[in-house]
Amino acid sequence: MRPAPTPDLLARFAAIVGAANALTDPVDIAPYVVEWRDLYLGRTPLVLKPGSTQEVAEVLKLAHETGTAIVPQGGNTGLVGGQTPDETGAEIVLSLSRLNRIRDVDPAGDTVTVEAGVVLQALHDAAAETGRLFPLTLGSMGSCQVGGNIATNAGGTAVLSYGNMRAQVLGLEVVLADGRIWNGLKRLHKDNSGYDMKQLFIGSEGTIGVITAAVLRLQPQPAGIEVAFVGMPGPEEALKLLTLARSRAGAMLTGFELMPRMGLEFTLRHLAGARDPLEASHDWYVLCEISSTSEAEVARRVMEQVLGEALEDGIVTDAAIAQSMDQAAAFWKLRHGMSEVQKHEGGSIKHDVSVPVDQVPAFLRSAIAAVEAFMPDCRPIPFGHLGDGNIHFNVSQPIGMDKEAYLANWDAMNEVVHAIVGEFGGSVAAEHGVGRLKRGLIERVKDPVELEMLRALKKTFDPKGILNPGRVV
Amino acid sequence: MRPAPTPDLLARFAAIVGAANALTDPVDIAPYVVEWRDLYLGRTPLVLKPGSTQEVAEVLKLAHETGTAIVPQGGNTGLVGGQTPDETGAEIVLSLSRLNRIRDVDPAGDTVTVEAGVVLQALHDAAAETGRLFPLTLGSMGSCQVGGNIATNAGGTAVLSYGNMRAQVLGLEVVLADGRIWNGLKRLHKDNSGYDMKQLFIGSEGTIGVITAAVLRLQPQPAGIEVAFVGMPGPEEALKLLTLARSRAGAMLTGFELMPRMGLEFTLRHLAGARDPLEASHDWYVLCEISSTSEAEVARRVMEQVLGEALEDGIVTDAAIAQSMDQAAAFWKLRHGMSEVQKHEGGSIKHDVSVPVDQVPAFLRSAIAAVEAFMPDCRPIPFGHLGDGNIHFNVSQPIGMDKEAYLANWDAMNEVVHAIVGEFGGSVAAEHGVGRLKRGLIERVKDPVELEMLRALKKTFDPKGILNPGRVV
Repeated sequence: MRPAPTPDLLARFAAIVGAANALTDPVDIAPYVVEWRDLYLGRTPLVLKPGSTQEVAEVLKLAHETGTAIVPQGGNTGLVGGQTPDETGAEIVLSLSRLNRIRDVDPAGDTVTVEAGVVLQALHDAAAETGRLFPLTLGSMGSCQVGGNIATNAGGTAVLSYGNMRAQVLGLEVVLADGRIWNGLKRLHKDNSGYDMKQLFIGSEGTIGVITAAVLRLQPQPAGIEVAFVGMPGPEEALKLLTLARSRAGAMLTGFELMPRMGLEFTLRHLAGARDPLEASHDWYVLCEISSTSEAEVARRVMEQVLGEALEDGIVTDAAIAQSMDQAAAFWKLRHGMSEVQKHEGGSIKHDVSVPVDQVPAFLRSAIAAVEAFMPDCRPIPFGHLGDGNIHFNVSQPIGMDKEAYLANWDAMNEVVHAIVGEFGGSVAAEHGVGRLKRGLIERVKDPVELEMLRALKKTFDPKGILNPGRVV
Repeated sequence: MRPAPTPDLLARFAAIVGAANALTDPVDIAPYVVEWRDLYLGRTPLVLKPGSTQEVAEVLKLAHETGTAIVPQGGNTGLVGGQTPDETGAEIVLSLSRLNRIRDVDPAGDTVTVEAGVVLQALHDAAAETGRLFPLTLGSMGSCQVGGNIATNAGGTAVLSYGNMRAQVLGLEVVLADGRIWNGLKRLHKDNSGYDMKQLFIGSEGTIGVITAAVLRLQPQPAGIEVAFVGMPGPEEALKLLTLARSRAGAMLTGFELMPRMGLEFTLRHLAGARDPLEASHDWYVLCEISSTSEAEVARRVMEQVLGEALEDGIVTDAAIAQSMDQAAAFWKLRHGMSEVQKHEGGSIKHDVSVPVDQVPAFLRSAIAAVEAFMPDCRPIPFGHLGDGNIHFNVSQPIGMDKEAYLANWDAMNEVVHAIVGEFGGSVAAEHGVGRLKRGLIERVKDPVELEMLRALKKTFDPKGILNPGRVV
């Protein structure tokens, strides 16, 4: 086990950022050591809040020299234990939150240059002020930070049309494990001058470098956005609707989210002000969003055409198109609230998985049957980004069961579901990353050659293993 | 210098693929050792044409054991000396052309699984047969191969809306330098289960692994495509038109190519059947393409709206919208022919560069002035992908000058132009890659930390330096 840093060493770290930005009081430190889902509660003797890239570099240089473990942290909204220190008290937290300047917004070139600690919502606002859109949209966007979004290659509900965080990144500034600063803050859409190094750091979860700034792409703001809430018998029909909508709307299809009836019921029960948009009950639902950048009416016409065809073909049983911005927001709230409300129904065992898009219905059939066989009366709530093949396969406990007793089945149920994901050629870490939660899992299910490559990369870029040790690889 | 392989070793390599697929006759070998622009003429004792991934793996295993240099080759359409052997006769060519199966087309999931040797046009045709689009579009698409497109992260004329080759790749199969096979042929749109290894091989120009197969994304076919040929005073106006078109058409803007009058004149003079779409002469031109996936008429209306506004605002001086598919093809032919025709006007010194999109007009002013100061009467023909900030800054010789005498200025003129690219934060290898041509250049202009990272990666993945040695890093 790594020894805790000595008081003398802690003082040297603190001196880099100044006493005011080196937290040691347990009360100050508390928010940095606990995950919001309470899966992990760690300890640290020190939280460092550098105010410049140079200070980050000095921190890593000292950590590299002394073999001190560093845990980079953004908005602390991660779900896999990647951003909080472990229980040993040997890891120092490096918070990027003070690097929160939007350095430059460039509407002519459709780019923005931001520091790692900028909150995602602030970036959305800055883009909107110049008539542009930053598309990445997550439930946690009010507190998550851009650096963390990049380090975890965040996904969310706008991936279908705009891609995940990786697709938004044009350039990066990164501090390497030994304190060297790489200035890759290019505003270029095309650059084939060697291996594309930024790709390596996107999604690396702080294990091979610390992202301090980025150049990101902006998009035109849509002229019209239409949101529909659609009822249907099952995921097969949802897939047919997806194919139809994609062939009619192409890149204008900006959202396509699948939800089961029970998930909607949870939401109606526990989310203040939630109302069912449809009169009758349906077994499954899709939230479908179509946007147009040209004429506002086009989105409306295409939406009506898609739903008209789908109703005529018997693919869907009912549909409501939002008649106002407020109603559209209310539809989205039903979807965005679906994760949060599950805690009101007792324990929930989570899986963040993806399979090929066309395989989602078959996967859901198999996985639902398997968890119901594993534990009769459990309540599967699989929901999420059908358009990306990414399902949050969450399973709520049987009614009346003891919560702790249910959660004791976490690993065993994970194995049941992940085995089926494997059969379908899927990923057991689709969107939320690996962190500590899935490191062991990845070791078991990854192609062995790929695992060797991951380890070789880690060793090349962090030979002393000081950056987020025990996460990812 | 690396010694040439012994006859005994050559025989061992040949035995892996069989005598019929191991070319040794100089007549058979000739097409594999020369680049089509005649910049490089190399030598090799052996061209290997493996018929399976397993055979590729055995070739690399033997090469790794014996320290033999291997030059992977696709359609041999590269422009930077990356795919042909050097002059020593010590490098063996590994042609992927027999790995040319389209393994699977999946229109429901919008993916296709192809082997490296599939010709890009064949992929386009296979996608079209199932009502889908594969967007990557290059002048060489009748002969270039998908493996090479991935290894060079090819660009072309559809990047603006669909992204470069990197954006099309979901999964890869790669043979590593020591012969290990990595099966990363996933059909997933989201997978955050560790570093995204495929990104490393995309654009690596065969220097750290050999791509043998890939899973690629397909897109819906457009319902309507409109192509306009637009005249204007200068690049400033072209940039204004781009901003206008992007805000009106968004992702529907599928092409935006800049051309100078002299480039059009060369094309009209030397390309059979070429006609000027506009009556009067204009100093600069843009080819603008707008596509709709929903209603065919939308593309037409948006195009007319954009051009109407641009004419009214005095941004453009004249415009013609193609009235038929044939006419649209004729407009595109003017653009696609612009590289080819330059050879009829004597020597041409080439630069494949990019700058931030909003900086293109200022860059062009500086660079044109600089080359005209460097050599009065030279004829700059900067053209290309304004929407991506990627300009092919080609300079034709003064009329009447000796071609060889002109081309002797290649390096010196490159330095003039590349210095200006540097001032604008641009890339000196935007689209065509590094290969042998720009390896020395990259060493001089790259951020030193980035260069260290490139070398560290090369050493990690090809410790013996057998894969495309002397290319990239």
